[in-house]
Amino acid sequence: MENTQEYSHKRFNPLTGEWVLVSPHRAKRPWQGQEEDANQETRPTHDPDCYLCSGNTRANGEKNPDYEDVFVFVNDFSALQKDSKQFSLNDGLIKAEAEQGICKVICFSPDHSKSLADMNVKDIQKVIHTWQSEFTSLGKQSNINYVQIFENKGAVMGCSNPHPHGQIWSQSTLPNEVSKKDIHQKTYYKQNNNTLLQDYLKQELKLKERIVFENRAFVVLVPFWAIWPYEAMIVPKQPQKDIIELPREETILFAEAISVLTKIYDKLFNTSFPYSSGIHQAPTNNENNEHWHWHMSFYPPLLRSATVKKFMVGYEMFGMAQRDITPETAAQTLKHLADNLYTAKHF
Amino acid sequence: MENTQEYSHKRFNPLTGEWVLVSPHRAKRPWQGQEEDANQETRPTHDPDCYLCSGNTRANGEKNPDYEDVFVFVNDFSALQKDSKQFSLNDGLIKAEAEQGICKVICFSPDHSKSLADMNVKDIQKVIHTWQSEFTSLGKQSNINYVQIFENKGAVMGCSNPHPHGQIWSQSTLPNEVSKKDIHQKTYYKQNNNTLLQDYLKQELKLKERIVFENRAFVVLVPFWAIWPYEAMIVPKQPQKDIIELPREETILFAEAISVLTKIYDKLFNTSFPYSSGIHQAPTNNENNEHWHWHMSFYPPLLRSATVKKFMVGYEMFGMAQRDITPETAAQTLKHLADNLYTAKHF
Ligand SMILES: O=P(O)(O)O[C@H]1O[C@H](CO)[C@@H](O)[C@H](O)[C@H]1O
Ligand SMILES: O=P(O)(O)O[C@H]1O[C@H](CO)[C@@H](O)[C@H](O)[C@H]1O
Repeated sequence: MENTQEYSHKRFNPLTGEWVLVSPHRAKRPWQGQEEDANQETRPTHDPDCYLCSGNTRANGEKNPDYEDVFVFVNDFSALQKDSKQFSLNDGLIKAEAEQGICKVICFSPDHSKSLADMNVKDIQKVIHTWQSEFTSLGKQSNINYVQIFENKGAVMGCSNPHPHGQIWSQSTLPNEVSKKDIHQKTYYKQNNNTLLQDYLKQELKLKERIVFENRAFVVLVPFWAIWPYEAMIVPKQPQKDIIELPREETILFAEAISVLTKIYDKLFNTSFPYSSGIHQAPTNNENNEHWHWHMSFYPPLLRSATVKKFMVGYEMFGMAQRDITPETAAQTLKHLADNLYTAKHF
Repeated sequence: MENTQEYSHKRFNPLTGEWVLVSPHRAKRPWQGQEEDANQETRPTHDPDCYLCSGNTRANGEKNPDYEDVFVFVNDFSALQKDSKQFSLNDGLIKAEAEQGICKVICFSPDHSKSLADMNVKDIQKVIHTWQSEFTSLGKQSNINYVQIFENKGAVMGCSNPHPHGQIWSQSTLPNEVSKKDIHQKTYYKQNNNTLLQDYLKQELKLKERIVFENRAFVVLVPFWAIWPYEAMIVPKQPQKDIIELPREETILFAEAISVLTKIYDKLFNTSFPYSSGIHQAPTNNENNEHWHWHMSFYPPLLRSATVKKFMVGYEMFGMAQRDITPETAAQTLKHLADNLYTAKHF
């Protein structure tokens, strides 16, 4: 492994079939560019101007209920329409297809001041149960074949409201990223009769170089092919195609994994750590998706401090993703924080 | 086409084989999130603290010459190393390859206060001639098989120095984006005996819905599959695999296309318009690359004003790129600005 800590190289992501450029020698380059706001604000537990707080009125005039834990509603500005016209345009190199879908917002807690990192494990478990029931009900709808659960956290990640919330966009066809992972997992499964992530976990649990945390049912690790500086992935140890297959008694362990990861993220740069997270899982298309092994990924942009982020711009947009610090260094830093969390009984 | 102006749909990018989600009904959603700095600064023509200005000293102690037009040097913090060790790691699902390369910085002008939009066409032409000679000389080096020319403009695009400059990263293998375009152009060429962009231009020049500007040798258009709100592409009318094939007498027309596009970008929101731009062209691998039709793309993040940008975050990272305003609306706005530029003889 030492070559990968010294020389410019590329690493392969077997889930997507794409490469990332790693420049370990460059980790100490100075930064004189844009800095983000440090996000040290403290918020009230209820904000009368927040359209996600309980009892408040939203843009479309609807009033939120006085919810006590998790609250889900259809996005007032949904990017996908449920009953819009079906059409298909196929004129030479100009090709488009109608895409239908349902977009929902999920408030994680009525407490405006909290994020997942501040919530207790039992409350995170309630969020997971809601993800499960939304996944089930959306997946059953006609014309919905894929359900994307995600969260944008922090202004730098385009989040326009600091109230703890995520989103669920469900749609008729498989989006690009999911379609890549579908193909690569299928090919792997056919050849090996194990899911790709099952075999990958075996390797990682032996190497122990990129493991951040584990409990009986879950592993939190920085994947070998991570793109973002402190990217991490939560993977169930047992192959499960989607979160419905997660046994009820293990949802608390998934909640623990989320809790540990978000808590150490906040500790890393002493800031409410921004990220986009998302769960990739099998399509809801009634096909045999036994090649799927669901996982939750976190893509956080911060690189060196609460204010200096990694920019995925010119070279990254036209060429490929690029990173400086290695996944191994990032994993060690995060693991150290996770170990401290337990020693300090902060958890 | 009217369905594509009303209903959620996805559009196909035949160059990459990927889709973009378009939500035309959502263009008027309110924005309460992060706003960028408006970038209204005026800069001196020479800044003693700028490490790109002529005569100044760089981080590594080297002194820039008193250059008069374009100045190129090897990046002091290159992401790719030229003579680093060759290695290959292939252990189950853990796979990496050494990647060698040369990274250069290209100052477009000694005038610290200018951007491409402020430079005259003859001076932009000098930049193009330098791109051509760098492409030739880098492409000839052993172990360099691809040359990526790009620019990150503006702090929001990770640019850490406002001095007008771009970069050139060259490397041993084809990065992801280029490899996708290589495959799709090759397949198309085999089937049709024309380059993909040759046939696409034919369609667009007939439809005239997305053309922003054209001269004898170039078309500036918003591609049907554009991802960024005001994304645009400069395409030579004749199929040419790389910028070396651009006849000397037409470099001025390429310069004109860049000038018009960057000027109208600045007019759009009355700000020095941020973007990442890049030239995709044939690999320098000595293979028959006649299927390649080079083009220069601009990916600007601004959405509604000098301070409100489009965030490619959660759904976009886990699913697929998503846009609200349609490419047709964006093209009309840009075309209108281009027409005015000529009427007002600002050009
Ligand atoms: O090379 P620069 O200008 O210091 O850095 C900028 O461009 C690079 C290439 O797109 C990116 O990798 C960096 O994240 C960005 O900040
Ligand atoms: O839906 P929101 O939170 O208003 O918007 C945010 O998330 C969306 C889904 O990732 C993105 O398309 C938007 O660009 C972003 O600002």
